[in-house]
Amino acid sequence: MKEELIKKAERAKSACRKLANLSTEIKNKALLAIADALKKEKTKILSANQVDLNNAKKVNLSSALIDRLTLNEKRISEMVKGLKEIVDLSDPVGKIIAEWTRPFGGLKVNKTEPNGLKIQKVSVPLGVILMIYESRPNVTIEASGLCLKSGNAVILRGGSEAIKTNTILAKIIGQTAYANGIPDGSIEFIETTEREAISELIKLDQYIDLVIPRGGEEMIRAIREKATVPVLAHGKGNCHTYVDKEANIEMAIKICYNAKVQRPGVCNAMEKLLVHQEIAKKFLPLMIEEYKKAGVELRGCTRTQQIIPEVKPATEDDWYREYLTLILAIKIVDSVEEAIEHINKYGSGHSETIVTENKETAKKFLQEVDSSAVFHNASTRLHDGGVFGFGSEIGISTQKLHARGTMGLNELTSTKYIVFGKGQIRE
Amino acid sequence: MKEELIKKAERAKSACRKLANLSTEIKNKALLAIADALKKEKTKILSANQVDLNNAKKVNLSSALIDRLTLNEKRISEMVKGLKEIVDLSDPVGKIIAEWTRPFGGLKVNKTEPNGLKIQKVSVPLGVILMIYESRPNVTIEASGLCLKSGNAVILRGGSEAIKTNTILAKIIGQTAYANGIPDGSIEFIETTEREAISELIKLDQYIDLVIPRGGEEMIRAIREKATVPVLAHGKGNCHTYVDKEANIEMAIKICYNAKVQRPGVCNAMEKLLVHQEIAKKFLPLMIEEYKKAGVELRGCTRTQQIIPEVKPATEDDWYREYLTLILAIKIVDSVEEAIEHINKYGSGHSETIVTENKETAKKFLQEVDSSAVFHNASTRLHDGGVFGFGSEIGISTQKLHARGTMGLNELTSTKYIVFGKGQIRE
Repeated sequence: MKEELIKKAERAKSACRKLANLSTEIKNKALLAIADALKKEKTKILSANQVDLNNAKKVNLSSALIDRLTLNEKRISEMVKGLKEIVDLSDPVGKIIAEWTRPFGGLKVNKTEPNGLKIQKVSVPLGVILMIYESRPNVTIEASGLCLKSGNAVILRGGSEAIKTNTILAKIIGQTAYANGIPDGSIEFIETTEREAISELIKLDQYIDLVIPRGGEEMIRAIREKATVPVLAHGKGNCHTYVDKEANIEMAIKICYNAKVQRPGVCNAMEKLLVHQEIAKKFLPLMIEEYKKAGVELRGCTRTQQIIPEVKPATEDDWYREYLTLILAIKIVDSVEEAIEHINKYGSGHSETIVTENKETAKKFLQEVDSSAVFHNASTRLHDGGVFGFGSEIGISTQKLHARGTMGLNELTSTKYIVFGKGQIRE
Repeated sequence: MKEELIKKAERAKSACRKLANLSTEIKNKALLAIADALKKEKTKILSANQVDLNNAKKVNLSSALIDRLTLNEKRISEMVKGLKEIVDLSDPVGKIIAEWTRPFGGLKVNKTEPNGLKIQKVSVPLGVILMIYESRPNVTIEASGLCLKSGNAVILRGGSEAIKTNTILAKIIGQTAYANGIPDGSIEFIETTEREAISELIKLDQYIDLVIPRGGEEMIRAIREKATVPVLAHGKGNCHTYVDKEANIEMAIKICYNAKVQRPGVCNAMEKLLVHQEIAKKFLPLMIEEYKKAGVELRGCTRTQQIIPEVKPATEDDWYREYLTLILAIKIVDSVEEAIEHINKYGSGHSETIVTENKETAKKFLQEVDSSAVFHNASTRLHDGGVFGFGSEIGISTQKLHARGTMGLNELTSTKYIVFGKGQIRE
């Protein structure tokens, strides 16, 4: 198996050199051709998906996972639409990010003296990206599209539960891309569903420049521990909303309701509510009435329980947890400082919001909370590449290296320095 | 030991929150105070260094390593000067990298519709940086200075051969920093010289945001394999110069001589010379005469040997190697394409140069060579933060994630999104 994986990685590496220098036009033409091919082959795709679904039912896969695995005409249309949106995004490769000319002081150059070099910092593809993901077959399309547009070769490793669907999707993408001028090896698919394949792949750092795992915390942790290839992970979101003593209560209720209830299963949904003690007695009863209507299970600190007796006690563990469901833990704090400290201690550095009319308090919160995105008077649910205007999103990074927060096409690039001389040498 | 390391990491984590929000003024004041303290305490420093040197001689450390370990008045002055240079650099924290306001379309926000959010992308410190380094005690000063200026807490882990020197240096820096308003824990020093300390530290990813190893290839490899903390490494430099058929021969000789001979022991020194076959007969005899005078050992491909019979044959392994000494391997190629292919196959992605008067050929080379810096008509030795105008350099990264090429203060920062709303929620 190892040799087969190395062969695929070598093919991808070799393809990525050519891909890096393809014109935007060729890449877009191929993306549109892939979109068309998916439409044309939808019967084949749906029948492969049916095989996966039948197997999933046999092994009693959870209904949530079966839902994520399921394709239908609408979902195929969405995938096609997604590819077309990628076509419309500007090409992230070849952008001059910075450009400067050092003053000229002769051809012999000392450390910081004038040297006349013209220096450009230019965006380039990362090279070869390994995508490791679970159940959702649309990732096969999305990842291929984003990598192709950003000039990266991609190695796809989907979950075993979607193997039939992913195999046919990858085949359609690969063949169509190749027929439209994309180098062979640009989109490689790992057919084996053996777990060892992942352990092997994440160590092929001579060929693979980046691994993006999309899945549960445990899977990401395991990959981080074993990988020698750099990892860019969509992190967990233990997101907080802090309702300050000077909050507009009506706005606070809308934001807190939205952040928790609108879609509780996603990473930018709110998991913790911090409330300033001066506003708690007025705000909490109104807020909790709304939450009760939506069926939110509430946990809270002792002070919260004093105001709302039916709230269950929150344990120390609660403050760390990402529920991803209609559970919320509430804590009453004495100051914005205490809120910031609590978030920086228990939070996951994903997305946090302050609701306040006081700009100075907001400024303090926005500056001192150490998260990938901090909001003033807006729902954490708005941390999203689409909402921010990036057009598409690969995920939200909670790490600090390379990319932090919502990641779009630009985050799939690196840079290189291009330096123009006249014969300069080092003294 | 593990608990002690965790305690240090915890202290650093807690310090970094405060450090992130310190003013430039306070940071600069502390840097200047540290510079003064080093001058004042130089007798103490030199006598600690003498103990390390005596031990080094006892265990027969190589003369190169002893040289790197040695401090004297001049080197202390250089360290002091280095700190003052860091003071003069602009603060990399709190810069607004991008700022935009989305058109307003109501408080209920759909994926890509107008939403009126004002979004800032702001530079912030990484957090806690672990420096692992060998022999050179000046890294203790440099790393502390750069981390302090960029608002990062640092954990220093120097080599056992410099333990006495580093201990006194770290003590002076730590105490002076603290006395000048820098939070306790901002500069942590690992006193134990046990190897296991490194294995423990590089797994403390809940506290440490980045590890920067400075040392040999093997040490970096070992850290990459075991670390769960992200690694930013100064990579190996198998640098190439390609002399095109349309090169100015006089310029080519100067550049090739400089890139190989001026300082052969550093990562941006040239290790391989590629020569177009049409110019080889004219260029190589002149070039090799110069190299002989400098005592360069030459290896070459068969065609090189046909022109210069005394050149030793180069093996396949030679094309991959970083000699870091006065050895050079020469290959004759038939085209710029062959040169590019050779570099992308055997190179380490560090720094490469083309010498040519033909701008189209240069453009092809600059675009298709996949290295952190590519030069036209200039020596590879010029890949340097000082030369590029960055003022200081932490190293040169040959990886593609986060930072590529020469790394300055900016590369010690991450970003965060600060989002200003008016009560926007997700629809």
